[in-house]
This record gives sequence, C-alpha cells and structure tokens, in this order.
Amino acid sequence: MPPLIAEILEANRHYVAGQPTIPQAATPTKGLAVVTCMDVRIDPLALLGLSLGQAHVLRNAGARVTEDVLRSLVISQQALGTRAVILMPHTGCGVLGLDVGKLRPLRGDAGEPPRPLDFHPMDDLAAALAEDLRLLRGSPWIGQDVEIHGLILDTAEGSLLYPGL
Amino acid sequence: MPPLIAEILEANRHYVAGQPTIPQAATPTKGLAVVTCMDVRIDPLALLGLSLGQAHVLRNAGARVTEDVLRSLVISQQALGTRAVILMPHTGCGVLGLDVGKLRPLRGDAGEPPRPLDFHPMDDLAAALAEDLRLLRGSPWIGQDVEIHGLILDTAEGSLLYPGL
Repeated sequence: MPPLIAEILEANRHYVAGQPTIPQAATPTKGLAVVTCMDVRIDPLALLGLSLGQAHVLRNAGARVTEDVLRSLVISQQALGTRAVILMPHTGCGVLGLDVGKLRPLRGDAGEPPRPLDFHPMDDLAAALAEDLRLLRGSPWIGQDVEIHGLILDTAEGSLLYPGL
Repeated sequence: MPPLIAEILEANRHYVAGQPTIPQAATPTKGLAVVTCMDVRIDPLALLGLSLGQAHVLRNAGARVTEDVLRSLVISQQALGTRAVILMPHTGCGVLGLDVGKLRPLRGDAGEPPRPLDFHPMDDLAAALAEDLRLLRGSPWIGQDVEIHGLILDTAEGSLLYPGL
C-alpha cells in the first residue's frame, strides 16, 4: 500500500472512531448548490454559515462554469431537487492571470496525441463571474425557477461581497 | 438583495467576526489534490484527516474524471505543485444508476438549441473508479511522477476502503 494511502487510512480510522455526525439523506435541505474553487484556503460550508446536509458543493479550478459544472448542476436540480445556485470565485485565485501557454502535456510520447484543453483562465474576477452567471442563466438545461447568484470571496479575510451581478 | 444572499452574508459576518484561521499560501502543503463528489454528506478534509492548506479539493457529481477535472488537475500540478491525486467516489452516490433519460433541457423555447450533455452515469462504483483512474493515468497531460490513487468512501460510516486499483 502506498505510504500516502496508509497515512490517510490511519487518519480516517481516527475520524470514524470519533463517531462523526453524518446526515442520512442525500437531498440538500436548503435546496442549494454552491460552486467554488479548489483552493486550499477555502472552507466553503463554514464561511457560508452552512452545515453538512444543506448544500451540494462543487469545486474546480477558479469556480468557472464548465460543462462539468452544468452537468453536475442538472443532476443536483433534476435528481436531487436543488433550486438555487451560488457561484463563489475568490480573490487571489491561481486561475487569475494564469499563463496557460506554460501548461503543457507532459507525456508527448504517450500513444494518444494530447487533446487541447480549455483552461478557462480569467483576467478579471467580476468579469469572469458575470460571464459565468450569464452562461448558467442562459442555459436551456437550467429551469427559469432556479435562483442563480454570485458572491466574491475575499480569500484572506474569509468575507463575502455581493456584487449584485 | 435576494433573501438567500442576505441570510448568507449575515452568517458570513459571524464567521469573519470569529477570526477564523485561514492559511496564507495558495500552495497545497501536502502536494495533494482530492477529487470527490458534491454530495451533502461528505466532509472531505475531516474524513481524510486533512486541514485547510494541505490539499486542493475538487468536487462534481459522482467524483468522475471529466475534462474539467483534468483541466483543474493540470493547473493544480503545473501551477501549484501538487504531485498526488486521490479519486474518492462514495457509496449511495446519486450518479449510481442515474436514469439520464429523465434529465431534460427545461427551456426548449430558449434561443440556442440545447447542447447534449454527457452525464457520466455509473452502474458500478469500483468499475467507474477503475475507468477514471485509467483515464488519469493514461492522460498525456499528467506527469509520470504523479501518484494517482483511488479510495471508496462508505458514505454513512465515513470510512474509507482502499480497493488497490
């Protein structure tokens, strides 16, 4: 077993031994899905004042609205009943000003030729959020009754700004 | 301001007033990225024995390896230095046995015709995990030096199984 996995399984045994409170139901009790970044500094539920059980949490690089986010939100809404979405990008995000030209396939000798990837870089947080809100609000996959809001997280402070987009 | 946003901003003011400990650096100190599901019952860092600052957390419907996950992992690895990935799907996932035929565009009258979405459904957790591990391990975008492991989460217990895939 890889050392990383052995270490995690040991930590997990301690977690389980502590008899954590785990919700029984898969349905988000606040009917909410939150989309935020994978960034290590973000504690999504805590900073939103939410608990386990209340909201789906989606996370990727930059909190961008990709096809995967749309896919996940359709499942969240149509299979698990959510009716609100909050997009929550954050200051100091690694995707802000990302030089995508430096991102490269690392195994040119692999059998399949590398498929190009859209890295969804952004130069301006509010502009990217506005674009992503527009994408979601305009998607035929999302019902008109779904609330879609944007919040900007000040990463260092943990505080939220509502830009009214 | 929408009532949902007012409620969240009020809760966020309490969170900030409590002076939460927020890591300063964006670089994951354990060099790790975890991919798991958006499910409301999952507390990813706690069950892995991790703290804020240690690992990127990526979440979508089903913990599937989509193009967005690959995009985010390339940024995680090449811009933020991670060198290990853990894929962590879970029992009782909403994507298991999902009837994708029931998922439908909701605004047929919208201007743009709805683009079909691949919902990445799965019938068997271990088989889906094996497929996703294979996708990542075979991707030319991922370096040979990156450790890629799979763990299966027992959702109700919070316990982890290492299937050795």
